[in-house]
Amino acid sequence: MQLNEHERIDQLYAQGIQIIQSANVFSFSLDAVLLANFPNIPKKGTIVDLCAGNGAVGLFISKKTKAHIYQVELQEKLADMAKRSIALNHLTEQMTVYQMDLKDSHKQLAPDSVDLLVCNPPYFENIPTGVKNPNPHLAIARHEIHTNLEEVLATSSRLLKMNGRFAMVHRPDRFLEILEKMQKHRLAPKRVQFVYPKEGKEANILLIEGIKDGKTTGFKVLPPLTTYDQTGEYTPAVHEMLYGR
Amino acid sequence: MQLNEHERIDQLYAQGIQIIQSANVFSFSLDAVLLANFPNIPKKGTIVDLCAGNGAVGLFISKKTKAHIYQVELQEKLADMAKRSIALNHLTEQMTVYQMDLKDSHKQLAPDSVDLLVCNPPYFENIPTGVKNPNPHLAIARHEIHTNLEEVLATSSRLLKMNGRFAMVHRPDRFLEILEKMQKHRLAPKRVQFVYPKEGKEANILLIEGIKDGKTTGFKVLPPLTTYDQTGEYTPAVHEMLYGR
Repeated sequence: MQLNEHERIDQLYAQGIQIIQSANVFSFSLDAVLLANFPNIPKKGTIVDLCAGNGAVGLFISKKTKAHIYQVELQEKLADMAKRSIALNHLTEQMTVYQMDLKDSHKQLAPDSVDLLVCNPPYFENIPTGVKNPNPHLAIARHEIHTNLEEVLATSSRLLKMNGRFAMVHRPDRFLEILEKMQKHRLAPKRVQFVYPKEGKEANILLIEGIKDGKTTGFKVLPPLTTYDQTGEYTPAVHEMLYGR
Repeated sequence: MQLNEHERIDQLYAQGIQIIQSANVFSFSLDAVLLANFPNIPKKGTIVDLCAGNGAVGLFISKKTKAHIYQVELQEKLADMAKRSIALNHLTEQMTVYQMDLKDSHKQLAPDSVDLLVCNPPYFENIPTGVKNPNPHLAIARHEIHTNLEEVLATSSRLLKMNGRFAMVHRPDRFLEILEKMQKHRLAPKRVQFVYPKEGKEANILLIEGIKDGKTTGFKVLPPLTTYDQTGEYTPAVHEMLYGR
């Protein structure tokens, strides 16, 4: 396995997955692990991982399904890392990376064909005067420079089949906009889970699931998830996602 | 103090408030205590308690403010209990009960005049074929027989001054509708807190605060609140709301 300068191989022990990372380009965060553990994973069919980065989310769910997993990532360096991680884990039969703008994803993936779409999009609005990471790879991954929430949801809706599931990780401060735009794009919000950094703090991550053309009744708020305990260690639930039982 | 048949006097120890209750007509629930502990209470000005029932929410917040508290309740028997509880607690200078339909509340309360409006409305849609409590007092308090969410929010918005606060307790399964209708009626959702019956269970109560004509940015999800611990006892946070420190 060819590693480029500054790259390393990390491991998600819980899933037995090795993943090529780089502090200079991209490393997956806890958010990817949370997202991979959130939705009901179809046993077969088609899964799409949009804004796939170095491929973490798709890699982490690969052991739970026989579905083919297509990963869409704009940045060439990240898509290349994802491809090499897929080879490293002997998953080339099950996983495919498309290095492209998600706006073009319907050219490779048939509309109305996807059973589950997972997405860990850029969280921050692209405010021209706002402070961004000076590293362009990280800035693109975190800020809505090349895509935005509206485009992510429109693309997701286009690709999903009727009753297909959409699952996304995002930030609670954009929750109202997420709910409004999901509904605008025919993704009925069904379940949300809030993640709190520690006891007594406001939520800093949300996980949301929607169903294309689903009903908007029966919305559920899942049990809260807390990342760290009072001593700064991962809580048992999060530890298990990272290291297994 | 005149007690009618089947009435009793209960106490909210945390606030040193006595309250006239009746299993046959109405008794306050934990929801009222949660709501009374949720919003920032203005020190002075005007507070309205809409769908006041036997007056629990207004009574529970009375010790935290010098604001005048107006309670609006449709049902004569409940409004009468509220009036007698106010007298029992020597709060007749600070609190006023209007027995009327909330649609008429602008006839007694000036529009655009209220600093804080609290509401514990009927939770359940009025489905004609649905099962309701055979006791009409309880059915009216729980089901949208004489009012509904839309009317509650329209009335609240009309009464509140610009930047006045709206706080409501409701059910998570109606969260999407609550957010949509609040925004329709110029009540910008700002903070939500989910209440879980016990660890590992989905939320069964939500508390939401909005600001009239506020911005919809910066939405916050407060730390979760859990009602019961694994032994079936109240958690310390809820115990304190009921019994004080």
